Amino acid sequence: MEFGKNNTPFSEHEFAERVAKTKQRMAEAGLDALICSDPANMNYLTGYNGWSFYVHQAVIVLQDLEQPLWFGRGQDANGARITTILPDENILYYSDDFVQSTTSHPMQDVARNLKARGMTTGRIGVEADSFYFTGRALDILRAELPDARIVDADLLVNWVRAVKSPAEIELMQQAARITEKMMTTAIDHMAVGTRQCDVAAEIQAVGTRGLDAYGGDYPAIVPLMPTGIGTSCPHLTWSDAPFQAQTGTTIEVAGVRHRYHVPLTRTVYLGQPPQKMADAAKVVAEGIEAALEVAKPGAGSREVHSAWTRTIARQGLVKDSRCGYSIGLNFPPDWGERTISLRATDDTILQPNMTIHFMPGIWLDDWGIAISEPIRITETGVETFCSFERKLFVK
Amino acid sequence: MEFGKNNTPFSEHEFAERVAKTKQRMAEAGLDALICSDPANMNYLTGYNGWSFYVHQAVIVLQDLEQPLWFGRGQDANGARITTILPDENILYYSDDFVQSTTSHPMQDVARNLKARGMTTGRIGVEADSFYFTGRALDILRAELPDARIVDADLLVNWVRAVKSPAEIELMQQAARITEKMMTTAIDHMAVGTRQCDVAAEIQAVGTRGLDAYGGDYPAIVPLMPTGIGTSCPHLTWSDAPFQAQTGTTIEVAGVRHRYHVPLTRTVYLGQPPQKMADAAKVVAEGIEAALEVAKPGAGSREVHSAWTRTIARQGLVKDSRCGYSIGLNFPPDWGERTISLRATDDTILQPNMTIHFMPGIWLDDWGIAISEPIRITETGVETFCSFERKLFVK
Repeated sequence: MEFGKNNTPFSEHEFAERVAKTKQRMAEAGLDALICSDPANMNYLTGYNGWSFYVHQAVIVLQDLEQPLWFGRGQDANGARITTILPDENILYYSDDFVQSTTSHPMQDVARNLKARGMTTGRIGVEADSFYFTGRALDILRAELPDARIVDADLLVNWVRAVKSPAEIELMQQAARITEKMMTTAIDHMAVGTRQCDVAAEIQAVGTRGLDAYGGDYPAIVPLMPTGIGTSCPHLTWSDAPFQAQTGTTIEVAGVRHRYHVPLTRTVYLGQPPQKMADAAKVVAEGIEAALEVAKPGAGSREVHSAWTRTIARQGLVKDSRCGYSIGLNFPPDWGERTISLRATDDTILQPNMTIHFMPGIWLDDWGIAISEPIRITETGVETFCSFERKLFVK
Repeated sequence: MEFGKNNTPFSEHEFAERVAKTKQRMAEAGLDALICSDPANMNYLTGYNGWSFYVHQAVIVLQDLEQPLWFGRGQDANGARITTILPDENILYYSDDFVQSTTSHPMQDVARNLKARGMTTGRIGVEADSFYFTGRALDILRAELPDARIVDADLLVNWVRAVKSPAEIELMQQAARITEKMMTTAIDHMAVGTRQCDVAAEIQAVGTRGLDAYGGDYPAIVPLMPTGIGTSCPHLTWSDAPFQAQTGTTIEVAGVRHRYHVPLTRTVYLGQPPQKMADAAKVVAEGIEAALEVAKPGAGSREVHSAWTRTIARQGLVKDSRCGYSIGLNFPPDWGERTISLRATDDTILQPNMTIHFMPGIWLDDWGIAISEPIRITETGVETFCSFERKLFVK
């Protein structure tokens, strides 16, 4: 039985370019090998797409080998054969007794494979601060490869991902249509007395169903919908309590297409909003306008941040967290790429086809408001992925 | 504005017992402190419930402090105030410039807080192989606390979680009603020509909506539904391709109540199943029967595994992966607890109120079949959470 190769939305050429760019950065960092544990980086370099990131796995790029190696659990090897562009001989796997074992660890098998390819010495990069690359994994690699140099190469591939290709942008544009539909669904279904979980169910169904022309994929974060005092913090999920009259709710959702995310946030008020919230919504909208005015190739991430903070400060509003971050390809637990952060301490110079969730949420002591805008840096300025009114929605 | 305390489904007494058991195990391991990064352990010890595990955070248990400390990002501190049982003074947070920074790391702030509490020396446990506790986090703790001993205490709390309380069992029984509804929905909606994403949408909506009496929560794993050749591996998610005639599909879903999971797997065949698959379904059902016959307090995890393998071997079937694992409270990316694995190398002796997903999936070269059973060990034997026919569903 033959496994079909390249069931991905990208050409083999595009994958080859990604690997070439990665090897270029590896050369600059003096790396002979790079062990990628971030599922998004694994997908980016090979197409691998499975919910297996709860066991140790990796895509390994060797400077001396044309295509990367996929490494994972035996029962997931067929998943790699089905979803990646890799030839069978590049798919390596460990036996099931390595899984959550007290006596052995998958990274021992990674080390064995590296040694079998002559990598007993040399500089081996790891994604030291990425999800799923644990402290023990690092210790075991060091112990098993005592003569190699294990180097923290976190975000090396993430930075390659920061600038999107036309094919990636197209997927994000498709995702944006799903996002708009999810947000419309959320606002339509929210009502006093309706259970939060019932609205979340509608949002998820619409997101997964997608459109008639194409379906949706699962988001790296479930719909976030803190309500009432919960709006004072961004990351609460639904309960089965009904929505209350005279409360605000912050809805954050993302439409997803082939693992590419376009997130969007709006705040909905059931009843007559307090003046401070209505005022804040206007200030936030002004701040977004001012920031997007500044965002263009050559501008610094911190200039965008500064345009935002200056504008809202005039109205007495303060936000001490970053007001945006890079988005695109991802898997749980985050749709952010962990590279660009729009804030005063970020050195990024914007380039065409960087894609950012401009997310200027304001979380105060006992209330908050968030209106966001997913954007693409164009050749001359900025383009919003979604078309969705920037205001406080009142029902 | 007052934050309501204990919005959890458990009594303060139950939380106190969990912390006491944790401290007891810490004492046995000679630990003065334990840094828990696993979101399930954070929830278990304090009630904390937010989708913030994509940034560094922890619950820290100090032997000398009655209640644990919550540690996280500034903007999530209100989430901790709302969802945990902790007094405000136990909620510590770092400023936003620590988030995904190239110059500072949240674990520096953890170390600072520990030092401020006199923990410059002493034995500090970390969950070294848990998701979200990264290699860099471990290195930074070691560097910042050079005179302390950083000890791998992975799974210490997970093992406390392995035996459930009556209140936890009740939540799982509630979750099981949602699970049954999700699986019925999946089977009802599957049809030749229906898009996979449309079935996934229905499953998710039912799971989140739950029942009229209580709502559902998000599962730690999205519905898995490998189809056709995809059934040869367990962890593929949906696409927008339509289901094909004459193909099998493995559906794995979990109903969730207050983060407590009850997963269930069934295989559905659209058309006339090949004889080998129909036969395999019967063998798997026999194997489950034989294994559950053996599962009871005092029996070893490996005896259950052995009853299963012996039974299917008689029919020529081989499965080389574990046939079950501990379940309960969890967050993405896994509803398994990483403690008990039903396999030949596992030393666990079963106890009343251990809860296990008996998951004897068989994944062969180009097809597979899975029929599972979530179970509770009772005082005398075993009880299934779900009531769902053990067979190959044919449509």
